[in-house]
Amino acid sequence: MNGHVSLVGAGPGDPGLLTRKAIVRLRRADLVLYDALVDESVLRYARRAQKFFVGKRAGRHAMSQPAIHALMIRAARKGKQVVRLKGGDPFVFGRGGEEALAMRRAGIEYDVVPGVTSAVAAPAAAGIPVTHRGVSSAFLVVSAHEEAAFRAAVGQLQPNGITIVVLMGLGRSAAVASVLIDNGWPRGTPAAIVVDGTRPQQQVWRGTLDDLAADRVVIDSCGAGIIVVGEVVTLGMYAAAGMAAAGGR
Amino acid sequence: MNGHVSLVGAGPGDPGLLTRKAIVRLRRADLVLYDALVDESVLRYARRAQKFFVGKRAGRHAMSQPAIHALMIRAARKGKQVVRLKGGDPFVFGRGGEEALAMRRAGIEYDVVPGVTSAVAAPAAAGIPVTHRGVSSAFLVVSAHEEAAFRAAVGQLQPNGITIVVLMGLGRSAAVASVLIDNGWPRGTPAAIVVDGTRPQQQVWRGTLDDLAADRVVIDSCGAGIIVVGEVVTLGMYAAAGMAAAGGR
Repeated sequence: MNGHVSLVGAGPGDPGLLTRKAIVRLRRADLVLYDALVDESVLRYARRAQKFFVGKRAGRHAMSQPAIHALMIRAARKGKQVVRLKGGDPFVFGRGGEEALAMRRAGIEYDVVPGVTSAVAAPAAAGIPVTHRGVSSAFLVVSAHEEAAFRAAVGQLQPNGITIVVLMGLGRSAAVASVLIDNGWPRGTPAAIVVDGTRPQQQVWRGTLDDLAADRVVIDSCGAGIIVVGEVVTLGMYAAAGMAAAGGR
Repeated sequence: MNGHVSLVGAGPGDPGLLTRKAIVRLRRADLVLYDALVDESVLRYARRAQKFFVGKRAGRHAMSQPAIHALMIRAARKGKQVVRLKGGDPFVFGRGGEEALAMRRAGIEYDVVPGVTSAVAAPAAAGIPVTHRGVSSAFLVVSAHEEAAFRAAVGQLQPNGITIVVLMGLGRSAAVASVLIDNGWPRGTPAAIVVDGTRPQQQVWRGTLDDLAADRVVIDSCGAGIIVVGEVVTLGMYAAAGMAAAGGR
């Protein structure tokens, strides 16, 4: 009897943003493979599972993608219920597509449980709506992990009512801003950085593309962070006060 | 004593994709205002609440946005716990930003509970990852509700490793495809339509931009649907079989 693999999104950080379906999958799991972006408190749902950390940790490499695939396939072939738990959503820069294809090639049954993506939820937690009537009618989600791909993606994109959300760009925020300025985005375009969005230790910085390009950002960037660029950031300044007042999770 | 307003995302349709926090808010609610994209089965969590439908229904107009704001403010001032329940995520074309600003102006405490957005989850349910290493390093989420804004947003966007997800474009799919073709996207670019994504009645159509532009789409488009354009759609063709085999929700 074969096992089963679930590629599960754990959401942006706040354990309250886990879905019911993710919890069901964790409860049934025999094996959970999780990465650095997952809040470890959500692992408590996987009571009867072995849990392996397969992400990057200070000073140590992450397990390679083929090694992760092999681990999942081996466990499923032994009849195990495997959960591959990822921060955010498995298909938003989560390499979920590669894992899905690997499972399919190996003949392993699998499903995908989407999660709340930090691309939308981290700005929201800072009071920034990625779309807003009359301000932004579209948003681009892009990774800054590979500079060539980032340049190609934002290429000729003009600042005409669009929000840009940059993932994996925290260590490259000056370069990210310079690319946009080179492409004609005004230096005064509002920009924000949200570190550990939706978590208690969340930090928010707000300024302009020019501040970013000149490295005038004061934020402790050890956590996972996103960059938001566009007029919606200024809107967020107003909304933030009300949201803070709401308090509680 | 003042009440409280929560702007809550109900996710893409599958009630299993509701978050824990959304459930907590519904359980506490005295009043729930919900719209057409919400699966009514999730309302059962709001046992002690009055529930009002404020969305569009066949032949009848939706309640106006100012009227919804007024209803929320009045209830909160009476000390009620109000949940404004929206399909997907409140800030992805959900007018959540407008409602947040209205609450702030009225001095009402509020918070935002992000949801799983159909922009990512509906393609996923059809086996289409919005990003995929070496195929797509960015995705644009755009509404086709207003043609001028749509044209401006996709403007000079070139098909260089980007996925486009079009919301509210089901009745305008030929026009959407024509705009992209006019902007230089090859007619053979893979495209898909997902109707009622993540629900049991989900339907998926796959083809090309050319098929879309020529109205060669056979799909019952009464439900809520999204259009996905980009090479990731073809990748999905492979993944879909495995996902179907997984079965069950």
